[in-house]
Amino acid sequence: MDLHILDHKLRVTSISKNGLVNFTHPLIKLIFLRNRTRCKFFSLTETPENYTVVLDEEGFKELEPSEHLKVEGSIWLPLNVVSNGNASSSSQAVGVTKIAKSVIAPLAQQHVSVFMLSTYQTDFILVKEKDLSVVIRTLEEEFNIYREFEGESVPVHCQDVSVCLHKNGKEALQPTVHPVLIPQNQFCVMSLDPETLPSIATTLIDVLFYSSSPKEDTSSSSADQDINCIKFFSFSLIDGYVSLVMDTKAQRQFPADLLFTSSSGELWRMVRIGGQPLGFDECGIVAQISQPLADSDISAYYISTFSFDHALVPEEDIVSVRDMLHHQRKEPAAS
Amino acid sequence: MDLHILDHKLRVTSISKNGLVNFTHPLIKLIFLRNRTRCKFFSLTETPENYTVVLDEEGFKELEPSEHLKVEGSIWLPLNVVSNGNASSSSQAVGVTKIAKSVIAPLAQQHVSVFMLSTYQTDFILVKEKDLSVVIRTLEEEFNIYREFEGESVPVHCQDVSVCLHKNGKEALQPTVHPVLIPQNQFCVMSLDPETLPSIATTLIDVLFYSSSPKEDTSSSSADQDINCIKFFSFSLIDGYVSLVMDTKAQRQFPADLLFTSSSGELWRMVRIGGQPLGFDECGIVAQISQPLADSDISAYYISTFSFDHALVPEEDIVSVRDMLHHQRKEPAAS
Repeated sequence: MDLHILDHKLRVTSISKNGLVNFTHPLIKLIFLRNRTRCKFFSLTETPENYTVVLDEEGFKELEPSEHLKVEGSIWLPLNVVSNGNASSSSQAVGVTKIAKSVIAPLAQQHVSVFMLSTYQTDFILVKEKDLSVVIRTLEEEFNIYREFEGESVPVHCQDVSVCLHKNGKEALQPTVHPVLIPQNQFCVMSLDPETLPSIATTLIDVLFYSSSPKEDTSSSSADQDINCIKFFSFSLIDGYVSLVMDTKAQRQFPADLLFTSSSGELWRMVRIGGQPLGFDECGIVAQISQPLADSDISAYYISTFSFDHALVPEEDIVSVRDMLHHQRKEPAAS
Repeated sequence: MDLHILDHKLRVTSISKNGLVNFTHPLIKLIFLRNRTRCKFFSLTETPENYTVVLDEEGFKELEPSEHLKVEGSIWLPLNVVSNGNASSSSQAVGVTKIAKSVIAPLAQQHVSVFMLSTYQTDFILVKEKDLSVVIRTLEEEFNIYREFEGESVPVHCQDVSVCLHKNGKEALQPTVHPVLIPQNQFCVMSLDPETLPSIATTLIDVLFYSSSPKEDTSSSSADQDINCIKFFSFSLIDGYVSLVMDTKAQRQFPADLLFTSSSGELWRMVRIGGQPLGFDECGIVAQISQPLADSDISAYYISTFSFDHALVPEEDIVSVRDMLHHQRKEPAAS
């Protein structure tokens, strides 16, 4: 299999809920006006805590410093696994499950923290630029590694002989077991032809920027306050591909004929990981959940945000996933 | 003829050019998200100086106080002339020309300053609420006057016996003669079905909010700097009707099948009135230009903004209008 280090230098930022109004101008530009920006990697995810914005340096330039904007200090590089056609894996699962054992577990063992961003099209594994040597060293046995640069893919090998991998990987496999939350919403992972993005512009703007404003023409807002549901909406526009993750309630606001899912009617349930904000240094969080999912061959999308991590698993698997997580939390960590 | 005092209490505001980014959030809501606002009267006009925003109190609530927002102190009421079908006037002219002698001249004579807002559908004459008694007294001979209130039209008469009209109107007919500017752009006055507003959302957002940002994908921007052209774009959404005034360069960015003009290909030229910002107290400015246009039966739209006034006359009449204005400025005011 091939692993590509993509030609994007990313920043991971968050905008506070009440600071969004100050960022509407640059964000709308980044989402809808492709001829006004050179940004090629943009992702915006609303959670109850804040808006997580992951974007390349061209996009980051558009965000003015503000008390409402938090910026994680690192430059992050997105990795992308490309299976070369020959299905070496017998798994039918999609998403992070496919890369749990080959990428996520080895990086966790080497104490590399990752920021995951699953989209309709693929799964991006973001690693800190400073960890790149360790990443290459760790994954070069399993993968042909290429670094993309100005449209070319150049094979890379770890030149850095000083990189010392942790021999005793077991040590890293015992991270903090974080509390999880399983909200009631059902989610869909969708895409649309980027040419039709203007057709859903007002709906998307409404959902992204005004969902917390009261509606003047309806009296119903009880569903908004359903405490068993979570506010979660993710939009990404990466190298020209659009991906949307939203719950079925948001989905109903969009025209049914423009958005598509991989198999019609496929619904997902969410597991939110973390009781306190997770930070960006801890490693093994993704591994902790993707490993058992891989063992059970359960598909999963995985979206990290500024505060928490979010796994999406097929609706029909949520009971077994819940049991598995429950079990993981009751058992003392294997010693 | 009937004159309606509409049921809107309006504020006239301006947003500075570099302050627009701070108002993108409320303005997009007011333009595109009708189910999130009770605002029924909204107009936004970009000029080289600033953005003039005229809106009712529901809309005004959306604008946060800011160093970038100037608010004219008065409450303004929009008047609207409704011809009752029987074409008492033999004039074929449209716009302010039709009301120059019946409304604009008499109000100027009574020292009532007006703020004009022509749209595709009609011409709104905005007067200050404090001047209402004088307005009614002045116009009640010529018009049946109705005040609209919660959907009902109630006939009104001036109850205010203390209102003393200026007997010697001549005095008011000698206002300052302001310099005028006649830019080279050709303008169109257009409308569209409000249901199709979402279809032009991204283009309209681009033109309204990003026209001063550089485009990344083109090298041509020489036309933007044509010093003989003026930056002028006006959008209004009033009681559900959309009106757009833009030059032919902006028009080419919109899909041709959605916007319509009253007669296809009708083009207008602009006369900008004022060398220094005009303020809101001087009266007779509109009369000064609409009177001779009415004498020559030349149609005219008229759009006041925070700093200057703008008349639009048919392209084929611009030479005679220019000559007329030139003549007016060379002659000493009639004594």
